[in-house]
Amino acid sequence: MSGKNLLASDFLETCRARVDAELDRCITRDSASGRLQEAMRYSVLGGGKRIRPALCLAAAKAMGQTGDEALIPACSVELIHAYSLIHDDLPAMDDDELRRGRPTTHIAFDEATAILAGDALQALAFGWLAEAPGLSESVRLIMVRELARASGHGGMVGGQAIDLESVGKTLALAQLETMHRHKTGALIETSVRIGALTAPSVDEHALASLTQYAKALGLAFQVQDDLLDIEGDTTVIGKPQGSDAARAKPTYPALLGLEGAREHLANLLEQAQQSLQAFGPEADPLRAMADYVVARTH
Amino acid sequence: MSGKNLLASDFLETCRARVDAELDRCITRDSASGRLQEAMRYSVLGGGKRIRPALCLAAAKAMGQTGDEALIPACSVELIHAYSLIHDDLPAMDDDELRRGRPTTHIAFDEATAILAGDALQALAFGWLAEAPGLSESVRLIMVRELARASGHGGMVGGQAIDLESVGKTLALAQLETMHRHKTGALIETSVRIGALTAPSVDEHALASLTQYAKALGLAFQVQDDLLDIEGDTTVIGKPQGSDAARAKPTYPALLGLEGAREHLANLLEQAQQSLQAFGPEADPLRAMADYVVARTH
Repeated sequence: MSGKNLLASDFLETCRARVDAELDRCITRDSASGRLQEAMRYSVLGGGKRIRPALCLAAAKAMGQTGDEALIPACSVELIHAYSLIHDDLPAMDDDELRRGRPTTHIAFDEATAILAGDALQALAFGWLAEAPGLSESVRLIMVRELARASGHGGMVGGQAIDLESVGKTLALAQLETMHRHKTGALIETSVRIGALTAPSVDEHALASLTQYAKALGLAFQVQDDLLDIEGDTTVIGKPQGSDAARAKPTYPALLGLEGAREHLANLLEQAQQSLQAFGPEADPLRAMADYVVARTH
Repeated sequence: MSGKNLLASDFLETCRARVDAELDRCITRDSASGRLQEAMRYSVLGGGKRIRPALCLAAAKAMGQTGDEALIPACSVELIHAYSLIHDDLPAMDDDELRRGRPTTHIAFDEATAILAGDALQALAFGWLAEAPGLSESVRLIMVRELARASGHGGMVGGQAIDLESVGKTLALAQLETMHRHKTGALIETSVRIGALTAPSVDEHALASLTQYAKALGLAFQVQDDLLDIEGDTTVIGKPQGSDAARAKPTYPALLGLEGAREHLANLLEQAQQSLQAFGPEADPLRAMADYVVARTH
């Protein structure tokens, strides 16, 4: 393991601990429905690498944010991610019974509770952003707007819809990228942008560079996901290996071949790192996160 | 039909036309997934009385708002209502095939698209509130916070979860009220409060009175819904009559008897009207809306 990767895993581990503690503290147990609350906690607190919150915190650092102001925004993004996984796993969607080695929410509870838990987590995410401590009203509003766009029909949910329509179809590379830019890219991009926006002063040029970084990383993330689905091991990735191929989902290796997909991944990583050129060591966590995303085994 | 009811139907008709036009204009057709967009438009633009937006606009009027500033907030509340209906109708929830005399979204499209359309509408609602024109950043933020609370686990979604848990159980009146205060009351209350908050200056005492009005009206709305389920006609109410009883859902008539439920309804209406005592004719639309809710036949 290289020095950079050591830094990445250290950084990610620290972020995960902070984010997990904050999520545990903030998803209260005082709901009118105990079962709903349990399902929300089960879904959000059941592990997860916390890559999006880590990117949010790393971007805040890169922009000179030294306080805790990015923590609640980072957790909000994770709530959106968590809700999307719950709904993605439903029988009418991907019909997955296993997530991170545990029963998915609709298996552990029931379908109706899973739908509602997802819905409630989405509302919670926007509520948290609107109340994020230490940030101006203006910044909180921009964050709400960014998250709404990135997670809605023009972003994540739109991408999921394209994904559903694409099963069994042959997509061109451009179409595959459009799907992923929406489905996973938009939320990764917004994680980075929201983190950056928490900084005391936000330089537009620097924000644009971080956005470029996030766009490349978002696609790299998906290429690596596709590769892991072929090369990975079920016990490590937490879901049956080869499940994309089994569902005839379009993937990068299917389009570019294994070698072509690996090359594409390397290019995207290079693009991501290049976007950080103007930054000093304050962007090292972002650099390390990019290496981590590409090197990860699950 | 009394003069008051004439006013109510006039007011409601005017509101509906404004809200329908704005929803049609704002739910764009430029989404990455045409099918998702279609499902969103189908669900939102397929009729509906627009009671919540009308309450929002009426409350704005009562607080002295003379402009259009409450229109987008009113539409945002309707998006939340529309998404909740889509998810409520799903097979795993109420399993309804008919809504407003038309196939429900998952019947007209498919389950996965219905889940995603609901998810996307929720995100859109928060995005619209954050960008509502003519309002200060401070007011927009408060609206986002109010909507997040009213629609999430501590409000609407929490109430739906209690509802699911209550099927086949005998609830005491207090428990039934807790369920409805969450399930339908919270969003009705927030419709009124959000409308009031768009006024150029918001008097805390007046806001508290409107909140009282909304709380009473929210419960009245549900009692009337329960009564309509027994007394109504399928072709008028747009869903099979008697469907609550068939599912052994707890209702006011089941708890209080028909006469008792009618009396309870009259008391709640009285409470709602009393809360408006300090207001002049600027609150007439709110007064009329209360009469309408109680007198409606569907």
